[in-house]
Amino acid sequence: MITGKNYIGNDASSNGNEVLKAYNPADGSTFTEDFFAATPEEINAAVEKAQEAFGTYKAISYEKRAQFLETIAEEIMSLGDTLLERASGESGLPLGRFQGERGRTCNQLKMFAGVLRDGSWLDVNIDTAILDRQPIPKVDLRKIQIPLGPVAVFGASNFPLAFSTAGGDTASALAAGNPVIVKGHEAHLGTNDLVSQAVLRAVEKCGMPDGTFSMVNGGISAGQQLVKHPKVKAVGFTGSLRGGRAIFDLANQRPEPIPVYAEMGSTNPSFLMPDKLSSDPEGLGNTFANSVALGVGQFCTSPGLLIGVKSTALDQFIETLSKNLAAKEAVTMLNEKISTSYYAHRGTIIEQTGVEIIGEDANPGSNKGKPLTAKVSAAAFLENPKLHEEIFGPFTMVVACEDTSEMLAVANAMHGQLTGTMVATENDMEKHSEVADALSVKVGRILFNGVPTGVEVCHSMQHGGPYPASTDQRTTSVGTAAISRFARPISYQNWPDHLLPDALKNNNPLNIWRTINGTLTKAAVS
Amino acid sequence: MITGKNYIGNDASSNGNEVLKAYNPADGSTFTEDFFAATPEEINAAVEKAQEAFGTYKAISYEKRAQFLETIAEEIMSLGDTLLERASGESGLPLGRFQGERGRTCNQLKMFAGVLRDGSWLDVNIDTAILDRQPIPKVDLRKIQIPLGPVAVFGASNFPLAFSTAGGDTASALAAGNPVIVKGHEAHLGTNDLVSQAVLRAVEKCGMPDGTFSMVNGGISAGQQLVKHPKVKAVGFTGSLRGGRAIFDLANQRPEPIPVYAEMGSTNPSFLMPDKLSSDPEGLGNTFANSVALGVGQFCTSPGLLIGVKSTALDQFIETLSKNLAAKEAVTMLNEKISTSYYAHRGTIIEQTGVEIIGEDANPGSNKGKPLTAKVSAAAFLENPKLHEEIFGPFTMVVACEDTSEMLAVANAMHGQLTGTMVATENDMEKHSEVADALSVKVGRILFNGVPTGVEVCHSMQHGGPYPASTDQRTTSVGTAAISRFARPISYQNWPDHLLPDALKNNNPLNIWRTINGTLTKAAVS
Repeated sequence: MITGKNYIGNDASSNGNEVLKAYNPADGSTFTEDFFAATPEEINAAVEKAQEAFGTYKAISYEKRAQFLETIAEEIMSLGDTLLERASGESGLPLGRFQGERGRTCNQLKMFAGVLRDGSWLDVNIDTAILDRQPIPKVDLRKIQIPLGPVAVFGASNFPLAFSTAGGDTASALAAGNPVIVKGHEAHLGTNDLVSQAVLRAVEKCGMPDGTFSMVNGGISAGQQLVKHPKVKAVGFTGSLRGGRAIFDLANQRPEPIPVYAEMGSTNPSFLMPDKLSSDPEGLGNTFANSVALGVGQFCTSPGLLIGVKSTALDQFIETLSKNLAAKEAVTMLNEKISTSYYAHRGTIIEQTGVEIIGEDANPGSNKGKPLTAKVSAAAFLENPKLHEEIFGPFTMVVACEDTSEMLAVANAMHGQLTGTMVATENDMEKHSEVADALSVKVGRILFNGVPTGVEVCHSMQHGGPYPASTDQRTTSVGTAAISRFARPISYQNWPDHLLPDALKNNNPLNIWRTINGTLTKAAVS
Repeated sequence: MITGKNYIGNDASSNGNEVLKAYNPADGSTFTEDFFAATPEEINAAVEKAQEAFGTYKAISYEKRAQFLETIAEEIMSLGDTLLERASGESGLPLGRFQGERGRTCNQLKMFAGVLRDGSWLDVNIDTAILDRQPIPKVDLRKIQIPLGPVAVFGASNFPLAFSTAGGDTASALAAGNPVIVKGHEAHLGTNDLVSQAVLRAVEKCGMPDGTFSMVNGGISAGQQLVKHPKVKAVGFTGSLRGGRAIFDLANQRPEPIPVYAEMGSTNPSFLMPDKLSSDPEGLGNTFANSVALGVGQFCTSPGLLIGVKSTALDQFIETLSKNLAAKEAVTMLNEKISTSYYAHRGTIIEQTGVEIIGEDANPGSNKGKPLTAKVSAAAFLENPKLHEEIFGPFTMVVACEDTSEMLAVANAMHGQLTGTMVATENDMEKHSEVADALSVKVGRILFNGVPTGVEVCHSMQHGGPYPASTDQRTTSVGTAAISRFARPISYQNWPDHLLPDALKNNNPLNIWRTINGTLTKAAVS
């Protein structure tokens, strides 16, 4: 089933000579297929086809677009165990994980189908004319969201389904009416190939124009070509700060800059407030150990920093945390690059002044990630920017403060974060409200207890945060609001009713919520 | 009343030695006051005060913020004729114009007060917990918009009130909960001084924290310091493409990039479709001449390109247009720089191959802008990027096409625009729907007949468009939606009800529209 080819719209294409290989990180073996890196001509053809498709695709009804997204979900399900096994083989993640992730991926596609039928994302505003207004008449103005044009999507290695080929970026960009060109992730080439074919079957079944979806394999230069192409109008990316920033810079240096939505992870600080910590240091130690080790720490919401006040309770917490983590098996990481980088980066951190590791600094080899706990004083943390960086993997560091005012200083010194957690009693919250307040300025999502891992896909999710968590904190990469990243408003002035988009017509044929002269209503324009 | 000082929060300050002067473009005279360019230390102090104020200001109730905006409007009105006369003196624009512009400025402030009371801009989404969900419980998530932090505002010379010191950028940034630092515009130093003092009186009357508003005078280096300051979190700008792009680039090169909302004008193409044009070529010629000459062409929506098919009707249109424009008096432009630039840029354009001027290429001197009409073939237009640039001033160019398919080619070749106009009958619209479709991809606002000048301040206005019309086409600089530029979402997870922002509390104490589990409602969370 895997062809190893690029999909230039509906055409499989392998004109290049450069061949990529897929690897199994668990045993280091190589999959048999050859994957052909796209040539510059193939990449250009994919964008040209996307631009050509845009003219038709943007005008297709929301209902038909919704059906298309649902059909993609069906086609992904039709891949059956082949997909799950391949994704597991290429990522080292267990098969069961992919049952969940496939469900999430399909639910996201269906969720955006629901968003399209609901119509609220269009943010329709209508202000009607007042012809006899003095000194000048008021015009009729009607505003709606329209798509941007071809979107380039760069998937993430840690979610080969939900944040990759047909993941949240692709689903939301297609929902908003944009053709998508996926740059296939080199760490799950086969998974990407299978899902790309599923999307293309949906394109054909639903009669979507050729070019609505393309997938090109390749390395950095292929990605750069996409980002720089004048006909690409936005980029979705999930991955490292280094990769995201490079794409962001490239996009902003274009003659016509374009938006880049890069979700780049964070350290997800958790503030262990005194009352709460002393009430159950061991329970919390175990809870956080399990969150740190979840998915071998390969989540962008993995808790990398745990901040508490020096105390017997903090010592007990650290002891439980480190024991629990030390007892966990080393588990295969996503790929060799990530495993190597985990140990290298971890090594740099634990060499920093004042950092003390708790347990053994072991690397069992074979791409396996072994958890580790470290500890540092707040004073050392505050003066060393290196310690503020994310370590991708099952590593966490406790920041020990002299008192809660030092906790506040740590909160104020934080970079932007996807999440921040107040581990607190209500008493803590009232006594130390300034910590939560400082944290709220730094994060996209703020939690009261619990752990940051686990990102609900829903209307009220904010997955994104102040830089460097993401390049555009005004947007989310998870949840219904993600669609707004790939749309922009246009106002129609004095436009004839029968020529307006349906959502703007007087009689509200789509029966959606609209703001008419400042009032939310489903009524017709009177 | 004019002090010539910088306002570092509530403190007037003039520590520097560099002095700026205000000019009257009508007679070339210099106003008497000395305006002190802010020192780097003063600029830094303004930002530090803004950051300090942010902690308090962001937590002030929406109602009190609304009253603050209304008080700014009152204080501006209290400046009386002093303000109108000064603005007229510094800009060359007639006194009556400033009665209108002052009204617009105050209405904008009051409009954002209304936005704050309405609460829809908060885009509140609540998804309630499902504790017994399998395989894992669903958390309670509540999303709201919060402010970004200190905002730097760069006003426009062509709207010394409505797009400057207390104009749309400042009003919307303050409304969203951000302190503002205005870089005073060098072309209306006195107007800026008066309005800054009005804002500061409102700050004091309403008990807003010191640092909620600051104003610094200076040149490019002062602006650069603001844009690069780590505590500045967003920038509003209205002005030239060159200035806007420079600020955009600087902001994106920061270690922590920040959003820049630069509205940079456009050529506002109008497509004169055959049926409509032949029905009334002379009427249309006069209508467009008046739009071109309005405000000496110093509007970002001035119609700089008029596209039609070669015909007797087009000849009649051009004749009327050019005669009308030639008959108009030369009128004082905003300042010497703008007048010089108008003639220089116009001179470059009319030297281009195939460009024919209709009438006399005159410059009466004394900063007066004399209208001029030119004509070029679509073929010449399509192959010369220079002809696609905006000329700021009363100059318009007719692009003569062989047929409507060449009109389509011109539409497809356009840069991004604030506006595009279809001058058309319904018959034209049906026969040539592809032209309107192509135009819609390029513009923020699309008009059916009428002229692009005149930007209604309302919910459904989109003032912004694909680059280079603005640096962020997803946003508008006019109308209620402008507030969203200076806010970002945050999600509260499992947060105690009584500690949530009022807008997110179960019982909906603000009585605002909220989306609860996907349904819009004003009901309490049950």
